[in-house]
Amino acid sequence: MSTSASAFVPGHVTGFFSTHPDDDPTKAGSRGGGITLDEGVTVRLEPGDGLELNGEPTTIEAVDRVLDALRATAHVVIETELPLGTGFGVSGSAALGTALAANDVFDRGLSENELITIAHGAEVQAGTGLGDIVAQARGGVPIRLEPGAPAYGAMDGIPARGEIEYLSFGELSTESVLSGETDELTVAGERALSALVAEPTLETFMQTSRRFARESGLLTPRVAEAIRDVSDAGGEAAMAMLGETVFALDDGLSAAGYDADRCEISLAGAHLR
Amino acid sequence: MSTSASAFVPGHVTGFFSTHPDDDPTKAGSRGGGITLDEGVTVRLEPGDGLELNGEPTTIEAVDRVLDALRATAHVVIETELPLGTGFGVSGSAALGTALAANDVFDRGLSENELITIAHGAEVQAGTGLGDIVAQARGGVPIRLEPGAPAYGAMDGIPARGEIEYLSFGELSTESVLSGETDELTVAGERALSALVAEPTLETFMQTSRRFARESGLLTPRVAEAIRDVSDAGGEAAMAMLGETVFALDDGLSAAGYDADRCEISLAGAHLR
Repeated sequence: MSTSASAFVPGHVTGFFSTHPDDDPTKAGSRGGGITLDEGVTVRLEPGDGLELNGEPTTIEAVDRVLDALRATAHVVIETELPLGTGFGVSGSAALGTALAANDVFDRGLSENELITIAHGAEVQAGTGLGDIVAQARGGVPIRLEPGAPAYGAMDGIPARGEIEYLSFGELSTESVLSGETDELTVAGERALSALVAEPTLETFMQTSRRFARESGLLTPRVAEAIRDVSDAGGEAAMAMLGETVFALDDGLSAAGYDADRCEISLAGAHLR
Repeated sequence: MSTSASAFVPGHVTGFFSTHPDDDPTKAGSRGGGITLDEGVTVRLEPGDGLELNGEPTTIEAVDRVLDALRATAHVVIETELPLGTGFGVSGSAALGTALAANDVFDRGLSENELITIAHGAEVQAGTGLGDIVAQARGGVPIRLEPGAPAYGAMDGIPARGEIEYLSFGELSTESVLSGETDELTVAGERALSALVAEPTLETFMQTSRRFARESGLLTPRVAEAIRDVSDAGGEAAMAMLGETVFALDDGLSAAGYDADRCEISLAGAHLR
């Protein structure tokens, strides 16, 4: 048994999605497309108790559920420079990083698929996400072809790399969107997925994501304005689901005069450090 | 259309495997376990013709087949510090890197799964490998649960990272082993996979790999001696399939007095650079 372990989980912005509920949380999930970011979440874990997020005591239901599933009583320290509640999948990162680190500290001997399944199920049951964790486990630019944990889901990816800029204006509640009426959203999300599968390039991903933001009714005026400004400056931007957040390829936001954070597409998925 | 593109593909040592032929090269493949290495193969590609490997003109059948499948007429420059023909999956890396780079240069608009499928099929048809490419596409410590390209295969992984040392005494011909009698090998490989799935840890991987090397009849005296020396020095080593090559966790080989190369488990799978 190690005395402590650390894991890194990339952030993940979803450009479009459709929701696929199921009574079995490992079958429930989302289809969609997103980009994983080399800016992410670090989880350090050791025997003990209590959860800290950026130095403040807090609770994250998905993390508690992961610890319960692994029969682990642990002190968990989560650090991230990503904004919270704004569409970067921080709760999913925290859950997946906790699964990887707790498996290591408590010698649970589980495989990566098993740990992803536990974290995905915990996140679905907490109601805080449907597809971030399988994407964050993979890295790159994941396409979620079929919903659910690895035994049920199916993934592909866009072969791309490069810089990503992001800027968040505020929160959108994942719980309130996912618990509301999602039929229209799901139709728009399925249409976006068909278009991306037909042409799996970064440009198509950005176009389909912009169209999804409009069609789903999730686009806010501030995000729409930023996307337009980036486009006017010759760049490509879209909205991160679910947050009032814009992300752009390359230096798209700063070229349009915004003060944005910059990172790269994550080459690696979630991993022990 | 880019004028040129580069891809990096991690090296991959297989510890054990079973062969699963099929008339459809995208269904054919191997089950098994291995470790991807952050020492790998760089492929640079531009319109033109001719293939160079470490500065020397050569031909690699799997690379030619990938270029044909992508209708790409290209000059391909492959560079690697890994030894050739000794169990590091260099031919598979070259094929997969060519697929990624050619897709980018010639704007073929294919997904990662499609490119992996093309490269895997090319490698199977060339007779030079059965499972390296799907492992190299994934990164980490891949477990090949089901054989074949992404549409048919299934993968898991061991959540581990760390340093790996390796030392090659010489070549073993993949073609001659794979074209020979493989029943006994496949029984040993399936047994190793069951043991690893029951306990997916790096320690179990090394133990099952050593047992596979003995049971399959592939273990050579020089490799056996090196594995024993590493073990006597308190380390863990196994044989890389298919080469007369030893790999060890951490500094296992140098601690036993060998002059070995060192790298890390690759966190990332194959990617454009």
